[in-house]
Amino acid sequence: MMATKITLKTPKGMRDIGPQQMLIREKIFKLITDCFKRHGAQELDTPVCELRETLTGKYGEEAKLIYDLADQGGEILSLRYDLTVPFARYLAQHKTHSMKRYQIAKVYRRDNPKTTKGRFREFYQCDFDIAGPSDTMIADSECLRMLYECLNDLDLKNFLIKINHRRLISGMFEIAGVPKEKFKATCSAIDKLGKLTWDEIKKEMCVEKGLEEKSADKIGELIKHHGSIEILDSLLNQELGTNTEAKAGLEELKLLHSYCDALGINSSIEYDLSLARGLDYYTGLIYEVVLKNDELELGSIAAGGRYDGLVSTLSDNKHNIPCIGVSLGIERILAIIEQRMSNITQPGVNCYVVSIGDDMVAERLKILRELWSEGISAEHSYKAKSPKLMKEIPHCEEHNIPFIIIIGQDEVKSGTVKIKDLKKREQSEVERGKLVEFVKEKLADQK
Amino acid sequence: MMATKITLKTPKGMRDIGPQQMLIREKIFKLITDCFKRHGAQELDTPVCELRETLTGKYGEEAKLIYDLADQGGEILSLRYDLTVPFARYLAQHKTHSMKRYQIAKVYRRDNPKTTKGRFREFYQCDFDIAGPSDTMIADSECLRMLYECLNDLDLKNFLIKINHRRLISGMFEIAGVPKEKFKATCSAIDKLGKLTWDEIKKEMCVEKGLEEKSADKIGELIKHHGSIEILDSLLNQELGTNTEAKAGLEELKLLHSYCDALGINSSIEYDLSLARGLDYYTGLIYEVVLKNDELELGSIAAGGRYDGLVSTLSDNKHNIPCIGVSLGIERILAIIEQRMSNITQPGVNCYVVSIGDDMVAERLKILRELWSEGISAEHSYKAKSPKLMKEIPHCEEHNIPFIIIIGQDEVKSGTVKIKDLKKREQSEVERGKLVEFVKEKLADQK
Repeated sequence: MMATKITLKTPKGMRDIGPQQMLIREKIFKLITDCFKRHGAQELDTPVCELRETLTGKYGEEAKLIYDLADQGGEILSLRYDLTVPFARYLAQHKTHSMKRYQIAKVYRRDNPKTTKGRFREFYQCDFDIAGPSDTMIADSECLRMLYECLNDLDLKNFLIKINHRRLISGMFEIAGVPKEKFKATCSAIDKLGKLTWDEIKKEMCVEKGLEEKSADKIGELIKHHGSIEILDSLLNQELGTNTEAKAGLEELKLLHSYCDALGINSSIEYDLSLARGLDYYTGLIYEVVLKNDELELGSIAAGGRYDGLVSTLSDNKHNIPCIGVSLGIERILAIIEQRMSNITQPGVNCYVVSIGDDMVAERLKILRELWSEGISAEHSYKAKSPKLMKEIPHCEEHNIPFIIIIGQDEVKSGTVKIKDLKKREQSEVERGKLVEFVKEKLADQK
Repeated sequence: MMATKITLKTPKGMRDIGPQQMLIREKIFKLITDCFKRHGAQELDTPVCELRETLTGKYGEEAKLIYDLADQGGEILSLRYDLTVPFARYLAQHKTHSMKRYQIAKVYRRDNPKTTKGRFREFYQCDFDIAGPSDTMIADSECLRMLYECLNDLDLKNFLIKINHRRLISGMFEIAGVPKEKFKATCSAIDKLGKLTWDEIKKEMCVEKGLEEKSADKIGELIKHHGSIEILDSLLNQELGTNTEAKAGLEELKLLHSYCDALGINSSIEYDLSLARGLDYYTGLIYEVVLKNDELELGSIAAGGRYDGLVSTLSDNKHNIPCIGVSLGIERILAIIEQRMSNITQPGVNCYVVSIGDDMVAERLKILRELWSEGISAEHSYKAKSPKLMKEIPHCEEHNIPFIIIIGQDEVKSGTVKIKDLKKREQSEVERGKLVEFVKEKLADQK
């Protein structure tokens, strides 16, 4: 036997999403969209490709995971890596001054897929961003509140929003004696906490990135701090409080805390100095959401932060607009929600039309035409002669179709049609001309 | 002055879709989805990339328009060119025996974009397909009926569904003496009618594709036939009626006609022997929709056909399932619909919260928190001190926000809050604890 020549599969780390999963996804997207709209966001769609130069220099070490398109003549393109840079490109290109936008779309990363943990190479992100001037921490606090509402609406009660601030991180690095040009690389290294051990990260810092060992040790000591509001005051009174950058970061976080108090979300927040975020474009507040009881080891299920310089970078400093946003990584959440919603059944069409005897296709089609014209969903078998009713009933039960409409020569002669109600297990005979009306009443009763 | 180094644009032939356009798109997708569901279709999503070999040999001469991904190690991928081949790959991979599915997603073609005519390199297709056994022309007639309903629901009344049959085309080619191995190439050439003149196409046939001139002339004569049911009978009694393939095609079309009669759509149908469709995978009925009064020169706005061999090809003949489907090219329709819906306004949030005086951010946030918790959409300015009410009112009017909620020191003291109804131009004062209830009543009144 010859081996098959055709590889029949989706690309590595990408997958089809079948009808059952789509049903759950539709419900989840609706919940998320409602939450985005409650905060005044409008929808934007951008191309799946961007000019490669638009993406260059925005993602730090993660840039190696970008999918490039082949050079087929013309522009050099890549697939989008996130929805933030395309949004910033949009703002720069249109010289927008303020915009709250949401976008739910797929992004592409040539990462090592772990499909059981919800890590794919093609996956949906649900992004909400506030672009435009904001006094310190006001838009930021709304982003966190929106995130809190969204996670609650998704019934994910057991989450923790971890918070840090890029200026606090810069202050830590200054205190630890990290040279300024190594800040971004050091940030990338710390971002691997959770995936790598501290010893591995320290090795990366010292060997690959050339940090002094005492710098790495100092960082190791500082990033252990985490907790609620008390930690901020305590840190202000220690070494970090003497550093201008760190102090500014800590004070902004204290202001944020007072806003989050009014917004009623502080019990879900933890300040965590080990939170780094690998992307280059963040400039202020950063955050990440984890589940407190992360049995599936999903890691962060949402993340974001303030990026006040990105639009400026993209426009050659010709246009600037401060931004803050959050991105929900829906695939990881879906692993949980699909379990919970596994008993959801695909809704069937309203009616199934069956004919009895030969040469009855046209009669069947006439009935279908009437139903469809009136917005009633309906199907039939694609056989010239309908299968026996005994076979059609199980088909309808399996596919959640509540009514069977039956037409045969007898009914044509008497100008009637029969309707079987599968739930009530009763059959009616109605005048042919009153069929649609009758079905509409039946459907209204069901609701 | 130095020239800017950054190119700030979307890739050629691709574009951002802003909030106003998204609003219209959302409405259109809802109409189309409702129509698909009325006919029992379920949603499927597939990756934007496919293995390149999955796409190879499916698109005839159009294959040169496929976007390839760069070889970055690992699998060789391309962007999907349509939604039909990925669907067939899904059916082959899952060994599905019957499925009605719809998919609304973007496809990619490195074509010469004509954006004014709705031709883009990244564009949405809305696909509906019936996979599974069907007696002759039964599923086919439902596809046409579905298409008819869909175009009517979109309020595009002035359309014509042009119909042909691949077996009829094969018969024409046999009569014209075209060698069998040149059938596909000849089909591709004919498909260019409308874009090229007949003389140009004849030249392509004879010079590039090596057809004899008398074959090309014979084809030129036969493809002139078009019209309604009478043309089918007339052709059956002429030369085409003597050819087995052509006769089979004509007889299938006559059967289709009787079904379309029962379905009430024959007045929108024209049989047209010049309709070829360039894609390799069609095997039976083919169709294309044009507007009768195509002032924008949009060309076909929907197209499809039967492809009974594609799943088999993709599975190395291990699994087969006959299919028929239709694809709506929504971008071209949008050019028309956006004009018609241009007066649609973006809905604003329900409430805008304004504080008066200093140090009132927390009071504002507390009100917002209550509103958001109850599902009421609301915004505020991101300033620590709200701008003067005189400035906020025009902002709310411009953004269709009906209610302004005002809190100042006086209101905090008296435990009240003021609400301005911008439409009725009246202001109320309510107890702070009854705010949400009051707003809910106001909103219910609006509906």
